[in-house]
Amino acid sequence: MDDRIKRLAELIVTCGANIQPGQVVLLSSAIGKEQLTREITAAAYRRGAKFVDVNYYDPYIKRARVSYVQDEFLEYIPPWFGERVLELGRSHGASISLAGPTAPSLFDDLDPTRLGRDTYPRVRQWMQVTNDRTTNWCIVPCPTQEWAELVHPGQGGSAVLDRLWEEISHVCRLDEDDPAAAWRRRSDTLRDVARRLTERRLDALHFAGEGTDLTVGLLPTSSWVGGDEETVSGIRHLPNLPTEEVFTAPDPSRTEGVVRATMPMRVQGANVEGLRVRFEGGRAVEIDADRGAEVIRALSSRDEGASRLGEVALVDGEGRIGKLGTVFYDTLLDENAASHVALGDAYGTTVEEEDRARVNSSELHLDFMIGGPGVDVTATTREGDCVPVLHEGAWQI
Amino acid sequence: MDDRIKRLAELIVTCGANIQPGQVVLLSSAIGKEQLTREITAAAYRRGAKFVDVNYYDPYIKRARVSYVQDEFLEYIPPWFGERVLELGRSHGASISLAGPTAPSLFDDLDPTRLGRDTYPRVRQWMQVTNDRTTNWCIVPCPTQEWAELVHPGQGGSAVLDRLWEEISHVCRLDEDDPAAAWRRRSDTLRDVARRLTERRLDALHFAGEGTDLTVGLLPTSSWVGGDEETVSGIRHLPNLPTEEVFTAPDPSRTEGVVRATMPMRVQGANVEGLRVRFEGGRAVEIDADRGAEVIRALSSRDEGASRLGEVALVDGEGRIGKLGTVFYDTLLDENAASHVALGDAYGTTVEEEDRARVNSSELHLDFMIGGPGVDVTATTREGDCVPVLHEGAWQI
Repeated sequence: MDDRIKRLAELIVTCGANIQPGQVVLLSSAIGKEQLTREITAAAYRRGAKFVDVNYYDPYIKRARVSYVQDEFLEYIPPWFGERVLELGRSHGASISLAGPTAPSLFDDLDPTRLGRDTYPRVRQWMQVTNDRTTNWCIVPCPTQEWAELVHPGQGGSAVLDRLWEEISHVCRLDEDDPAAAWRRRSDTLRDVARRLTERRLDALHFAGEGTDLTVGLLPTSSWVGGDEETVSGIRHLPNLPTEEVFTAPDPSRTEGVVRATMPMRVQGANVEGLRVRFEGGRAVEIDADRGAEVIRALSSRDEGASRLGEVALVDGEGRIGKLGTVFYDTLLDENAASHVALGDAYGTTVEEEDRARVNSSELHLDFMIGGPGVDVTATTREGDCVPVLHEGAWQI
Repeated sequence: MDDRIKRLAELIVTCGANIQPGQVVLLSSAIGKEQLTREITAAAYRRGAKFVDVNYYDPYIKRARVSYVQDEFLEYIPPWFGERVLELGRSHGASISLAGPTAPSLFDDLDPTRLGRDTYPRVRQWMQVTNDRTTNWCIVPCPTQEWAELVHPGQGGSAVLDRLWEEISHVCRLDEDDPAAAWRRRSDTLRDVARRLTERRLDALHFAGEGTDLTVGLLPTSSWVGGDEETVSGIRHLPNLPTEEVFTAPDPSRTEGVVRATMPMRVQGANVEGLRVRFEGGRAVEIDADRGAEVIRALSSRDEGASRLGEVALVDGEGRIGKLGTVFYDTLLDENAASHVALGDAYGTTVEEEDRARVNSSELHLDFMIGGPGVDVTATTREGDCVPVLHEGAWQI
């Protein structure tokens, strides 16, 4: 057994999700990720977990559903999927999710509109529990052979999996003597950047370069968040492992202009390349792409909030992920390589109570990367000053 | 892809569970059974299922729990496990479970008492839903490499899996031109035997031979059941595929004597061989075995009903399973090879309303085989006559 699996499992349970004695843990895994899943489960029980509920997602089950289910049932998910999440929140449990694409080309021949309408296995109740801050949760990558071959095409065998493990170990700081301490330091840095951004009292951000000319208006109390977080019971946890971003909830009615994605991505198992979106009055009114535009269009028309922004996030060039220059085709990693925005639901905790009703709300939360060394970020403050934020990937604040 | 997988999947969905358009289906599978699981899911959606909720059990997760969880949490299962089952019943959904042992020697070094206390992944709510007859359900075997090597030790490679598939295909009547028609015929035969047994108004059964001398008293309205069943909405289904038994609920206070299991078995992943149980006043007062007695003792002390009988079942020598002479180490198959009894919960539907409160009730339902060509079965009628029931495996009624 690869020692990296054991070390990653320990880091997830202690530093990432920070499992407490007596907690119920929901562990969302997938077929092909059994080894890490089992190590995490054992580590969680050794740490005193009350119960670890492991759910293995199987992409072939989703494929059968999108292929054959009657149209009227395509958006149906049984009530117990959401109830489980709400009950986890009520009982102040914990959650661990293993990221990383599964069966990369399995959905290529499916109807993209039907694929876009099927959100399984995600349920919207996660957003509520996240905003309630009742669970300590962590999303973390799990290397697999098929993911490694997607990231590094043309290479096969165990060498390519080993290469992906090396990259994941590096960005998860497993190659540090004390990975948990390294994450505490990185969290401090991100929190400090977030504090400085919040103190600047920004009213709007402007992204310019590489085909992008986009203004994202913020809410009066939008505050920036980064690094680890704390539940209502005071449990510190790293929601994303790795994490390199600071983010906030924008004003869903004040996005204007055009934006071009700087990285390809996989959405619901479909490939999306060269995505271009035009916003008017906060709404995405035109969605085009070199590949996969239909999936994004279907997702963004799911509900009223799905065509508006719920998140804007800034990533500088100092993080470990962007420096690798690797496209991982996985939001968790790629969104921490570059500044990004998300269509759909907002993290309500990033605004004060008075703006809580104004942040965007949706069943969707779809990140896409819009930043990079060629995209400059400037801001207008509430006082009307224009200030540089990121230039060639370096903080200007 | 093996054609037998496709044909078994079709038989399960049509004839076994008899999935109806618009039904939600719970599909209980395990790691290693992905292929059949995927085929069943696709077949269910093609037949009009609304949603197929697939759950993959992973024995390594259970191992981690039994190994490390604190003693006070060993019997804890989160509420949503039971709620899901009850909600399936309320919505008149369907259920399919794939039988067959997983990772046969994985639990060999675990504390048998702790193993016996952990019923995961089974939840007691299934018994309620079964007795309510609100779901059409089917348990069916899924051949795997590790199961094949357990059944036919000393053989490896694909030949041994092929052999198990041949046996499973045969006992599931997949080798008939029209397997569904073959099951309708077999159901008719079993129902006819059950009707004749019920008409004899039996008061007690007596098992004698091969170390067994056991009397099992019946309730005034105990009636015999076999073959397919019907839900409250009139959906016919085969709860077990294959099935060769007729069964009823005994009087939990009137079992007397000693019984010796005629087959080894696997219980909660542990091996049990040479089981011997002595009953007094309906209670199992002595439990011994050549191997694994501790697991049975732990299970039978789980609650008051766990040491009393909830089922007695008769199997003649004409069924396809017994004739193979193969020990499958799986209750679904082995219980249909020989007459058996079960410690724990009863199927309340086998008695009339007036006796419903008298049948045994427990979180446990543990079958063990006590019949065979060397064990004769006689009965006493309510009128006091002694009648032969099974002699050398042949019906005498």
